[in-house]
Amino acid sequence: MEYIKSKENKLYKTIKKLKTRKYREKEKLFIAEGHKFLDFEKIPWAVLLRDGDDRYIEKAQRFSCPKYILSEALFNELSSQENSQGVILVYPMCETSIEAIGDNIVVLDRIQDPGNLGTIIRVADAAGYKDIVLLKGSVDVYNEKTVRSSMGSLFNMNFIYMEEDEIIKFMSEKSYKSTVTALREDAISYTEMTPGPKNAIIFGNEGQGVSEKIIEASDSKVIIPIYGSAESLNVAVASGIVLYKFRELLI
Amino acid sequence: MEYIKSKENKLYKTIKKLKTRKYREKEKLFIAEGHKFLDFEKIPWAVLLRDGDDRYIEKAQRFSCPKYILSEALFNELSSQENSQGVILVYPMCETSIEAIGDNIVVLDRIQDPGNLGTIIRVADAAGYKDIVLLKGSVDVYNEKTVRSSMGSLFNMNFIYMEEDEIIKFMSEKSYKSTVTALREDAISYTEMTPGPKNAIIFGNEGQGVSEKIIEASDSKVIIPIYGSAESLNVAVASGIVLYKFRELLI
Repeated sequence: MEYIKSKENKLYKTIKKLKTRKYREKEKLFIAEGHKFLDFEKIPWAVLLRDGDDRYIEKAQRFSCPKYILSEALFNELSSQENSQGVILVYPMCETSIEAIGDNIVVLDRIQDPGNLGTIIRVADAAGYKDIVLLKGSVDVYNEKTVRSSMGSLFNMNFIYMEEDEIIKFMSEKSYKSTVTALREDAISYTEMTPGPKNAIIFGNEGQGVSEKIIEASDSKVIIPIYGSAESLNVAVASGIVLYKFRELLI
Repeated sequence: MEYIKSKENKLYKTIKKLKTRKYREKEKLFIAEGHKFLDFEKIPWAVLLRDGDDRYIEKAQRFSCPKYILSEALFNELSSQENSQGVILVYPMCETSIEAIGDNIVVLDRIQDPGNLGTIIRVADAAGYKDIVLLKGSVDVYNEKTVRSSMGSLFNMNFIYMEEDEIIKFMSEKSYKSTVTALREDAISYTEMTPGPKNAIIFGNEGQGVSEKIIEASDSKVIIPIYGSAESLNVAVASGIVLYKFRELLI
């Protein structure tokens, strides 16, 4: 394992730049922090361990990729966690194609909070969906917080990027029945959803919900009834309730 | 409105100490940050606004409680948010009694993450539950992050504190049917749950789940099936799926 202690090290400089979305997209690489990632099958591009903390060296050895020990100062500058376990992995982005898209897809319209996006990715994976369409204006899938809260489910999903008009055209041309979650009076309860042969289930931005244009173009509007005094539900929780209910109906 | 600019101000010193659980429990007061709280019915014990930021003065006037303007330095020392809106409210803790406990209760066994606890409180409120039993070892309901992520639902719920042996005895003596969420092979799918006349639905610690002792004493063990490759679900998402499904069955 190579030891890195200079800020001027070329690899270190590259990885540090991966903290910005722009550079991640250029390099097609992203950062994941936490020893948990050493357990996943996905092969990283590089493993970085903190000097003086030998707990994870053995586990890291199973990967054929380059492994580095970083001085404590350099490691801590890269780390975004308060109590870091001293493990950072760098991964190549998953390549996905719209050609491979399945019959039951999840569409996310401008989700802003990286923790919410990561949790929705984990839910969608658990509930057996494979494809997530991210509309323009969504937070980056490869944001460090999103990666962390997805708990590895990121590696199991296909991500497709579209604009609002594209997804509307796509669902219509490919005969997807679109079910949109919307806090509207003319929406039916999520318990009344009826799947078609191909389905797109759409969740929207934390504050504004799904865009009017997509709601208008959708086949079905559903709402999760509020039985108590809460004003609304967190979007990640709502995705859990709706995606699992939809799965029940598909079985 | 009184203006506070000295660190030695008695009220300021009291409020600052509310950042610790011990002192909150002594004073029976807690802190909530964010302008959103100005919209709730619950009457605060005090409202603190940041000097130089007049947006919320009018809204704050509707409360009969004392209101204070804090110098920027003092306010920022109290604030726990990066982009604070300049509004902190102090509330008296809700008094609740085990006598008033209803027929469908939620039991939380050592939830550790304050954001998860807040989200579960919001879900339980939305799904029409009123009573939450917190077992010993749970994070504090009045932790600032819990308060924030509950989005006001904190004010709509009754919180009851029990030890493990107490809740087991309570459920048995009062004839509550206990349904525990557990990642076990002998658990049935949550879609097969069957409510009794009185019900307790139990969720456990993020890492360890519900304690073995409570699982053994329970009437029914349920699991949320994983259809994809995710290892598990976030506990707040799981509570949404199970509590809403249970509500469907109760209707």
